[in-house]
Amino acid sequence: MRISQLFTRTSKTAPADEVAKNAQLLIRAGFVYKVMAGVYAYTPLGLRVLENIKQIVREEMNAIGGQELIMSSLQAKETWAKTGRWDDEVVDVWFKSKLKDDTEVGFGWSHEETIIEMVQQYLKSYKDLPINVYQFQTKMRNELRAKSGIMRGREFVMKDMYSCSIDAEQHEAFYAATIEAYNRIFERLGLGEDTYVTFASGGAFTKFSHEFQTICDAGEDVIYLHRGKNIAVNEEVLEEALEELGVSRDEMEKVKTAEVGNIFNFGTQKSEEMGFTFTNAEGKEQFVHLGSYGIGITRVMGVIVEKFADDKGIVWPEGVAPAKVYLVRIGSDDAITHADALYDELTAKGIEVIYDDRDERPGVKFADAELMGIPYRVTVSDRLIADASYELTVRNSGETVLLTHDELLAKLS
Amino acid sequence: MRISQLFTRTSKTAPADEVAKNAQLLIRAGFVYKVMAGVYAYTPLGLRVLENIKQIVREEMNAIGGQELIMSSLQAKETWAKTGRWDDEVVDVWFKSKLKDDTEVGFGWSHEETIIEMVQQYLKSYKDLPINVYQFQTKMRNELRAKSGIMRGREFVMKDMYSCSIDAEQHEAFYAATIEAYNRIFERLGLGEDTYVTFASGGAFTKFSHEFQTICDAGEDVIYLHRGKNIAVNEEVLEEALEELGVSRDEMEKVKTAEVGNIFNFGTQKSEEMGFTFTNAEGKEQFVHLGSYGIGITRVMGVIVEKFADDKGIVWPEGVAPAKVYLVRIGSDDAITHADALYDELTAKGIEVIYDDRDERPGVKFADAELMGIPYRVTVSDRLIADASYELTVRNSGETVLLTHDELLAKLS
Repeated sequence: MRISQLFTRTSKTAPADEVAKNAQLLIRAGFVYKVMAGVYAYTPLGLRVLENIKQIVREEMNAIGGQELIMSSLQAKETWAKTGRWDDEVVDVWFKSKLKDDTEVGFGWSHEETIIEMVQQYLKSYKDLPINVYQFQTKMRNELRAKSGIMRGREFVMKDMYSCSIDAEQHEAFYAATIEAYNRIFERLGLGEDTYVTFASGGAFTKFSHEFQTICDAGEDVIYLHRGKNIAVNEEVLEEALEELGVSRDEMEKVKTAEVGNIFNFGTQKSEEMGFTFTNAEGKEQFVHLGSYGIGITRVMGVIVEKFADDKGIVWPEGVAPAKVYLVRIGSDDAITHADALYDELTAKGIEVIYDDRDERPGVKFADAELMGIPYRVTVSDRLIADASYELTVRNSGETVLLTHDELLAKLS
Repeated sequence: MRISQLFTRTSKTAPADEVAKNAQLLIRAGFVYKVMAGVYAYTPLGLRVLENIKQIVREEMNAIGGQELIMSSLQAKETWAKTGRWDDEVVDVWFKSKLKDDTEVGFGWSHEETIIEMVQQYLKSYKDLPINVYQFQTKMRNELRAKSGIMRGREFVMKDMYSCSIDAEQHEAFYAATIEAYNRIFERLGLGEDTYVTFASGGAFTKFSHEFQTICDAGEDVIYLHRGKNIAVNEEVLEEALEELGVSRDEMEKVKTAEVGNIFNFGTQKSEEMGFTFTNAEGKEQFVHLGSYGIGITRVMGVIVEKFADDKGIVWPEGVAPAKVYLVRIGSDDAITHADALYDELTAKGIEVIYDDRDERPGVKFADAELMGIPYRVTVSDRLIADASYELTVRNSGETVLLTHDELLAKLS
């Protein structure tokens, strides 16, 4: 991608009403455009990051037997009335509107009820189970405030998966497999080290659910952490969990975190509310065991920005960066020839490159490379050409080395 | 993909209130799930078709310099008030709702105004032009009636592109390039032969716009066609266009069509309404020349079903089919071994296969293969194994041949 052909621009300032660091940096770097409070569009660079995150999640969901589909945003009142969750007193984040004939419709803030209703159409016998389906869906939530940038928007992208199992045992096996898959995902997203499976409040069916909490100053949650024993507990269930786990509060460290994922065991509660059954081996109707498993895709993007950014800008982990290399060209004639050739060569090898082919001062280019957070900056200049070398700067360490052509290729491949 | 692991099921019936052939077949074949009138979800098979269509469109948009991004569904009133299109009297398909503080918000039925507002943030000088951006967006339209299945839904997916040009000349060049790109797209989608660039009503700036109309009995449009001269005119502008083109009405054939794409020249009209300017080479403010270019992604899927389906079910063109091969296994032991091996072999070669590994009668499997419309059906049975052959049936011709292993591989690769 040549910068000269990219329509976004970096900027020294963000909108005055934008208080969240993640949104400020993403807007300044040209990854995100603010439509209104809590509502963001993703420019070509931002969309690439989102798609990279989604692809990592997709691969891990497919690996444990998830089937991808896409539901609708528009929701029917009857579907949600079954569990009482159409009521604005029960769910206070609905956006609702009306069809021309005055029928009320809602916009999906969650898809639990509607996915159950769908699977219900297909599920007949125990032989059809387990069924695990997931989607990447744009969710709409009428949040009172929107001050966390893309970490809590009124419109955001979520991966939500739902498991339908024969019994508690089949459910537990998938629940455990999902925990493992989530651990792999956060590892691949660069968040592995600071993300904890955390005890959180359960529901009618289970004492606890599990959240995936990432240590992050901009997060809205507080957890208690025992790094040695790898135990994490959301403060909302601290007393019960400590008792259950046999650890004392003194051993725990209090940290601010952002919830990047959650998994929840519904047992048969929701199936009973919605009449979601199958025929078992003995020909008897039985309620389906349900689980739900979310990952906030746009929130993860925001958390990554918050966690790794420094005073120069964003620092993307390699797995999610919109490109691996930011190629800076300094000078004309020879520099153009050499930089063009390197751009073509790297691109042909499948290495994503943002090529700064503008007629701008080196300082401007270096600053943009840093603000955009691209993992490797490669500089081609007349002076370097004379030395037959390329300058490589690693974004997260700041380390700079001079490399020959072959060394550079080896390093980037 | 093994059918035994797919949660959807084919069905002999569609919902009683579903009158459109495309939706009836897609629901029966397990590609689509009806959420409510005019609102459909896409199951794993349906999602694959949608993604195949999107990928073809994406490649062709990128090839002409389009930059993909993603806007939001939520829309601000102020953005649309600028052109008067917030008003329900002017645009009668808005879904609207309210934030907690009573601020009105809309759900994107189009993104023209909001994309212009966004590009406006980045565009400074004539050197930045042209800018061509596009997205695959879920649109919401509060349609009075919804009787055309996925050909006209209340929620649907559209590719919408917008071009920003320096002047009429730069605009015309991109407009012409888009016509060529659209022709390639409809060719690749299997609709090339029956899709016509059609004169349609223009606007304040141009006498005519252009629609891409596909001959289709289920379509809502009527065009007049001169196949020999490759001229097509929407009936709404018949008189003016015939005059302009110098053909008489008698030479034209009246056909029913579905609008699968449209391209529109706004000139500087919308830029003037929205104050969308750039600084030209002489340092003067000038209005941007705008164009918009749509393709109805979900509608195209519906049109393909309507056009090619026969009395046995759907017939997917190869470029959009959810898989190339439907592998039918008949018998046990030997048949299982052979079919498993073929499935692994084809999959390893990157050929998408739906493997019917169920313990079902051959007739059930053949009927499902036909209903689902997969281009090639391959049968493995004890009798065929004894002959060292595979049976290959082509969905669109019904032709059946017996092939050796090597002949089969050659045919499918």
